[in-house]
Amino acid sequence: MSPFGTMSRRNLLTLIGATAGSAAMLRAMTTMGHAQESDYKPVKLEGDPNGASVVILGAGLAGMTAALELRDAGYNVTILEYQNRAGGRCMTLRGGDEVHEMGGFTQKVGFSEGQYLNNGPWRIPHHHQGVIHYCQRLGVELQPFVQQNDSAYLHSQTSFDGKPQRFSWVKNDYLGNVTELLAKAVNAGSLDDEVTGEVKDMLLESLRAYGALDGDMRYASNLATSNFRDYAKPPGGGLTGAPEPSVPIGRDDLLRSGLWEYLREHDTFEHHAALFQPVGGMDMIAKGFEAEVGSLITFDARVTRIAQSETGVTIDYESASGTGQGGSVTADYCVCTIPFSVLGQIDADLSSDLQNAVDGMWYYEGFKAGLEMKRRFWEQDEQIYGGITFTDLPIGQISYPSANMMSAGPGTLLAAYRFGKQAYELSALTPEQRIERCLADGEKIHGPAYRQEFVAGASWAWHRTSWTLGCYGHWDEYGTAYAQACAVDRRLVCAGEHLSYLPGWQEGAILSALDAITRLHERVMAG
Amino acid sequence: MSPFGTMSRRNLLTLIGATAGSAAMLRAMTTMGHAQESDYKPVKLEGDPNGASVVILGAGLAGMTAALELRDAGYNVTILEYQNRAGGRCMTLRGGDEVHEMGGFTQKVGFSEGQYLNNGPWRIPHHHQGVIHYCQRLGVELQPFVQQNDSAYLHSQTSFDGKPQRFSWVKNDYLGNVTELLAKAVNAGSLDDEVTGEVKDMLLESLRAYGALDGDMRYASNLATSNFRDYAKPPGGGLTGAPEPSVPIGRDDLLRSGLWEYLREHDTFEHHAALFQPVGGMDMIAKGFEAEVGSLITFDARVTRIAQSETGVTIDYESASGTGQGGSVTADYCVCTIPFSVLGQIDADLSSDLQNAVDGMWYYEGFKAGLEMKRRFWEQDEQIYGGITFTDLPIGQISYPSANMMSAGPGTLLAAYRFGKQAYELSALTPEQRIERCLADGEKIHGPAYRQEFVAGASWAWHRTSWTLGCYGHWDEYGTAYAQACAVDRRLVCAGEHLSYLPGWQEGAILSALDAITRLHERVMAG
Repeated sequence: MSPFGTMSRRNLLTLIGATAGSAAMLRAMTTMGHAQESDYKPVKLEGDPNGASVVILGAGLAGMTAALELRDAGYNVTILEYQNRAGGRCMTLRGGDEVHEMGGFTQKVGFSEGQYLNNGPWRIPHHHQGVIHYCQRLGVELQPFVQQNDSAYLHSQTSFDGKPQRFSWVKNDYLGNVTELLAKAVNAGSLDDEVTGEVKDMLLESLRAYGALDGDMRYASNLATSNFRDYAKPPGGGLTGAPEPSVPIGRDDLLRSGLWEYLREHDTFEHHAALFQPVGGMDMIAKGFEAEVGSLITFDARVTRIAQSETGVTIDYESASGTGQGGSVTADYCVCTIPFSVLGQIDADLSSDLQNAVDGMWYYEGFKAGLEMKRRFWEQDEQIYGGITFTDLPIGQISYPSANMMSAGPGTLLAAYRFGKQAYELSALTPEQRIERCLADGEKIHGPAYRQEFVAGASWAWHRTSWTLGCYGHWDEYGTAYAQACAVDRRLVCAGEHLSYLPGWQEGAILSALDAITRLHERVMAG
Repeated sequence: MSPFGTMSRRNLLTLIGATAGSAAMLRAMTTMGHAQESDYKPVKLEGDPNGASVVILGAGLAGMTAALELRDAGYNVTILEYQNRAGGRCMTLRGGDEVHEMGGFTQKVGFSEGQYLNNGPWRIPHHHQGVIHYCQRLGVELQPFVQQNDSAYLHSQTSFDGKPQRFSWVKNDYLGNVTELLAKAVNAGSLDDEVTGEVKDMLLESLRAYGALDGDMRYASNLATSNFRDYAKPPGGGLTGAPEPSVPIGRDDLLRSGLWEYLREHDTFEHHAALFQPVGGMDMIAKGFEAEVGSLITFDARVTRIAQSETGVTIDYESASGTGQGGSVTADYCVCTIPFSVLGQIDADLSSDLQNAVDGMWYYEGFKAGLEMKRRFWEQDEQIYGGITFTDLPIGQISYPSANMMSAGPGTLLAAYRFGKQAYELSALTPEQRIERCLADGEKIHGPAYRQEFVAGASWAWHRTSWTLGCYGHWDEYGTAYAQACAVDRRLVCAGEHLSYLPGWQEGAILSALDAITRLHERVMAG
């Protein structure tokens, strides 16, 4: 797979590794362009399990990945799922859905045909090659997700009279000021112990170019800086097309606003371009898996007891809805993808190490809301196509749909997305009050259109969801307890995003499942 | 259209404008979030031209925009087009196309079904609202164009042993070093005349956050910086998922490499996210226009003379291919979109001002090549989905297709894109040599796959194209000559990208056309 020839590169790296230690080897790897982009490797379950049976608890992405691969390896697989749907947190709210929340709130989603809110995961980094692998295998079509949008807003209630600032203004004005200040210090000789000679010259040249600094190494209002931050009047055609420069935000105002806090949101590894989303909603992935392993799933099954013996596992369950039959499943092995937040409340025969890990884990809260709008005013009136606006208002952010951009029809905004205290505050409101909160906050950024164009709204609180009791699991550190939680406990192994270094990501669920079943299979093959 | 209410905002701006001058007004506009994103305004040609006739020279986007709008306004429109196709520089090379170049080179394009090279314009900024307007009106579907890709490469033949560096490494290592150096200078008090007190504190806090600096305000090798630049081993799942940090490029190596020169390519106004492309190729726009005004076009018509009189214009033309009939068209008015590079060689009755502008304009050279590959190894092996690699090799850049990403089938790379000296050097090669140059250069970045997966190639030199004699027009300054070139000359007005502040962009052609026909129509209405 290496574009430079596998053998020669591997030999070189082995040589460097042997003589210069791991840091030098990593450095050599990265400077050769071949640091790993993804931790995904196709799973290999070799050898015949001789019809060994596995019961999988949970039909989320971890459970269905395990089911797919174990079935293909020759295992006899059954899945117990609490809900009446497959996918777990990989889900999408659509018109007609009825949403029940702990605490009694019920919502009937009123979105139009084709409109939806990805209330769980909503984007797929390009290096989440596990997710991408299964999407390709399961025929789930992906399309680009617009993460960074230079025209989206950054907004602070207490700065610039509460008026939203375009991302490109804040970004380029911040970088302009940083490069101007550094150039001044370098030119004054203040950093001569760090940079001298040719390197100093290159640094100054780079600062001038990077910051679009003028001949005096100042970041000023002119067409050069406008070509980065935006124009007051952009270039046009004919006699009326002359561009006019915009005026940068003053340095002190900019720094005091704190809006620079949002600038690097799009630059983190998870948000590196390009990103993707399934065409038609995130639950297309769930449906893709279900098409493969749906026949193995018993739905509406709330696990009440997990027992292990010398020879196998026995899982008791009852009807989660109270309308169906309970039952009991015995199998040789168990893959348990039940969130630890829920597993801790089940009568389960777990090792004390595993039980301690289960009991010690806490789950993040999480809140999302979506608003369907009659027309895409953010595109038509404000030229914002996809991407995210960040604000210190309770809603936290607004994300504009990456699907069906330019459509003359409706569009559905991610109208609130919060963790922490704000997630609890938003979810404490009634569903109607939440939507009003979203409208009131959104109006402060987008003006009256935000309310005028409103069609329908829906919200989702992961910490009020009975089958997860939270959004995703947290590890203070990935130490002994983590290793114990991942280990095969006699005939049972746990898997899910909570047993990964990618908590809250679908990739974490899939990679955890692949790692868990690989070790379980080794145990089986060892006899 | 203003989200804050048109009246109050306009009143406020008028007040500010009256009392504080234009700069203050622009500042107020920009801080309110409503600086113009686009210079496009829908054209309004009011009043009945009473059947006045217009002959339009050139069926490119400027000519067809003029034709569409003038026809809709009641004019009697005819178009003369040199080629046997509509669209001008809005074009796409596909399998089966035969390409003839000045100097005698002929290529028969060997791309597979569905593969193509946009040999002219290839991307549409979101603020090119003129192009977007006509795409929507003409039913041309747009899809996101991935401009910035953190995983694409920056490459220098003389740095890092010629090994390509991921964009995210260079970007984040540069920003890490800049923020570290500035923090040092600020902490040393070197900039106390610029920043003090709370602002100084905020600056330091922002630098720490922006650069992912450690507790000693250093940009170091750790998981925090890896979360921006890339990991040596990215986070995974289960027991094997622990991430490993990568090692940043050393400051001196980074600055000496000059790779920072490419960092801001994606941050200029034209490249602000989001960008778009037509589904299926850029010529979908040409076809969209042609569906509307194709019946007005006489193809294969080389204009040989442009005459004006008191009452109208007479255009003589001959068969460009030599196989058809020439002829003569008389009309009340003429919109001439012929590039000045070509117009200067035609016997035309132009005012001396206009003739001087025509004769004084020079056109940029431009070279593009495309390579179809059997499989998308840049996606499958290197996790590069869309975006652009920049290099100091002759090819200049490689761009990865934004369409059909994740496809198991073939993909076509933009394998060279140059202006300047390198465009001439590349186009001086035979078509076969050009492809070999692309393969040899591409191999240095992507390794042997680049040649192994090669299917077919095509190239295009705009300066060797008989109907443009160049890529796009250049103005040293937008002064008197520009105004004279845009002015209505008796019964004729010129339009095209060369008469815009957006040279080389389709938006420039469209906005120029709209401006020109608006002024021509005013002349007609004035009688």
